[in-house]
Amino acid sequence: MTSSKYSDEDIIYMQQAIDLARKGLYSTKPNPAVGCVLVKNGQVIGQGWHQQAGQPHAERLALAQAGINAEGATAYVTLEPCSHFGRTPPCADGLIEAKVAKVVVAMQDPNPLVASQGIERIEQAGIPVVLGVLESEARQINLGFIRKMEKQLPFVRLKIASSLDGRTAMANGESHWITGEESRLEVHKMRARCGALITGIGTVLADDPSLTVRLTDQQLSDMNLTQENCHPIRVVLDPNLSMPLNAKMLSLPGRTILMTSRETAERSPEIVEEIHAQGVEMVAVSAEDDHLDIESILHYLAEEEQINDVMVESGAIVAGAFMQSGLVNELHCFIAPSLMGNEAKPMFVLPGLDSMDKKLNLTIQSMDRFGDDARLILVPKD
Amino acid sequence: MTSSKYSDEDIIYMQQAIDLARKGLYSTKPNPAVGCVLVKNGQVIGQGWHQQAGQPHAERLALAQAGINAEGATAYVTLEPCSHFGRTPPCADGLIEAKVAKVVVAMQDPNPLVASQGIERIEQAGIPVVLGVLESEARQINLGFIRKMEKQLPFVRLKIASSLDGRTAMANGESHWITGEESRLEVHKMRARCGALITGIGTVLADDPSLTVRLTDQQLSDMNLTQENCHPIRVVLDPNLSMPLNAKMLSLPGRTILMTSRETAERSPEIVEEIHAQGVEMVAVSAEDDHLDIESILHYLAEEEQINDVMVESGAIVAGAFMQSGLVNELHCFIAPSLMGNEAKPMFVLPGLDSMDKKLNLTIQSMDRFGDDARLILVPKD
Repeated sequence: MTSSKYSDEDIIYMQQAIDLARKGLYSTKPNPAVGCVLVKNGQVIGQGWHQQAGQPHAERLALAQAGINAEGATAYVTLEPCSHFGRTPPCADGLIEAKVAKVVVAMQDPNPLVASQGIERIEQAGIPVVLGVLESEARQINLGFIRKMEKQLPFVRLKIASSLDGRTAMANGESHWITGEESRLEVHKMRARCGALITGIGTVLADDPSLTVRLTDQQLSDMNLTQENCHPIRVVLDPNLSMPLNAKMLSLPGRTILMTSRETAERSPEIVEEIHAQGVEMVAVSAEDDHLDIESILHYLAEEEQINDVMVESGAIVAGAFMQSGLVNELHCFIAPSLMGNEAKPMFVLPGLDSMDKKLNLTIQSMDRFGDDARLILVPKD
Repeated sequence: MTSSKYSDEDIIYMQQAIDLARKGLYSTKPNPAVGCVLVKNGQVIGQGWHQQAGQPHAERLALAQAGINAEGATAYVTLEPCSHFGRTPPCADGLIEAKVAKVVVAMQDPNPLVASQGIERIEQAGIPVVLGVLESEARQINLGFIRKMEKQLPFVRLKIASSLDGRTAMANGESHWITGEESRLEVHKMRARCGALITGIGTVLADDPSLTVRLTDQQLSDMNLTQENCHPIRVVLDPNLSMPLNAKMLSLPGRTILMTSRETAERSPEIVEEIHAQGVEMVAVSAEDDHLDIESILHYLAEEEQINDVMVESGAIVAGAFMQSGLVNELHCFIAPSLMGNEAKPMFVLPGLDSMDKKLNLTIQSMDRFGDDARLILVPKD
């Protein structure tokens, strides 16, 4: 039934390994989500998925489950087994020592410094490796990890909730609630998935939002998270350091980082001191005319904070700036079936966009429903 | 497999009759689209669909095809057979004379003056009638006819093409093209389906649109239409009679009616005379502060022009007024995957909508794709 160059068996077991990997979608950051299945004589004899940084890799868990029975088995792994000593010894060595007969890998390690080294190590031990089974599905689970490894940038999802006529709040700022419960639940899951949640100072001043993950213990447990470790770092773009030090988010679980401009930080040492005195984190990046440089912010988060996935939830100015930066990888639009009219607030402020040839073009990747709302996921146009 | 109270056979043949009726979707106006299938001993022995006002009804065509073989057959009809002498003799009589053994009907005649009379006539002749098979599907084909019969109003579809951020044109008015070819083709089919296409004088002054059906001979032929009879009546809402008499649409195939206020018509006899001298049709309706009364316009079109289906394609002011009137039955949104920014033109001007409790709430009925665009059809919230 499949037209793939891979066998049906390879595809079935790799799908199982991918399903296992997905269990770690929320909890492995900054590590990638990885799944492994060991198969011998048509029987699954071991399986594992990476749960959290510092804990065993998927291959180690599957090998432990199989025990000496692993000899002669085929190992299905969603990501090239590591060849380096990190917090755990190399998984490539583990597979070699266990004397598996074959290793099937969905995708190469995206880190250019180590890519293909794990596969080479296994092949040099005389074990054949098949590469590329369900590769595009396997990439989907680790878009953030891959982007960080390839570009030193996080994968950026911009979420926006609007009425059908593209409005995000009434003229008076009222916006609770445009979208329904199901959409809002999905947004909290998106928050739990990302490493950092970016907003603008305008949103903080207008709404004093919490920007926490609000999910039940059961929902978090299903995501392999807890009420303590589920919150992304909140990043407030605050070019002039106008953040009120009594802002709600500063006393809530999870870190908050104020991003400001180098110029502001230099110009206002007393404010910086006050911020530090309150125990609030602050980072200065380059800026132009009060607009913080988005690429610098994202680089900082990827390199210094080891963040794979960033989510942007902001007002129209920051959302527009992100869209115009070209650094948004997915736009998640939750569209409520309501009309709010021409005086309500716009989705995106896009300066300079004054003729049709300048409009920003995207591609719809998917359309689905959350309760009464529609959700469209869009990606940049090729 | 079906949980209906009707037999599988009834459902299968009624579906065939509905499929036949659909062939007349574009061409029967102001008549309803109707299909008929005659079945005897598990064989279809006659079928027909109403093609155009003045031409034979579906039942007559099916009976003619079956000939004397119709005796003892079961007749499946999507709409209650007529009992009155119109341009053709009553179909109820035709079925009785042909001595069919049973009549299966999807829905009653929606005209309260004649509803159930056809069925009674058939039953009085000793022929059993089954009513209600696939009724909701049958209603879908004749939403306009039903609404006109029940409410003396046409069924109103408001079509709007926008960017993802809810914009319909750049600030300078440029709007060609927001949506893609597939969406525009669908809009031309929507135009061909309706009896009247409503726009505002603002759109005429800004864009000088043609508002014709632009489809190929083959596309029209598939819809049982021709280049001559495919165009809906164009209705321009022109409260102050500002219509330029050299507007493009006035010299194009199809009628154009200017709708103005009674006050304007009385105040400006010389303009009215000039309009009439040019052979342009004009109708005066009630108005308040330059806003023509939408219900009056729709009543006029249903009663005087026998129009079942109206389509609104206008700018934000007229579109907003229609939405606020509560008389729009379906909102067809073609959403392009692009961003046009906060300075571009809004979808709806909705005066007085200044708090969340006043937003207009709808329900998403369907979501699909036309090329790169999304189309959402929304209906008023129950």
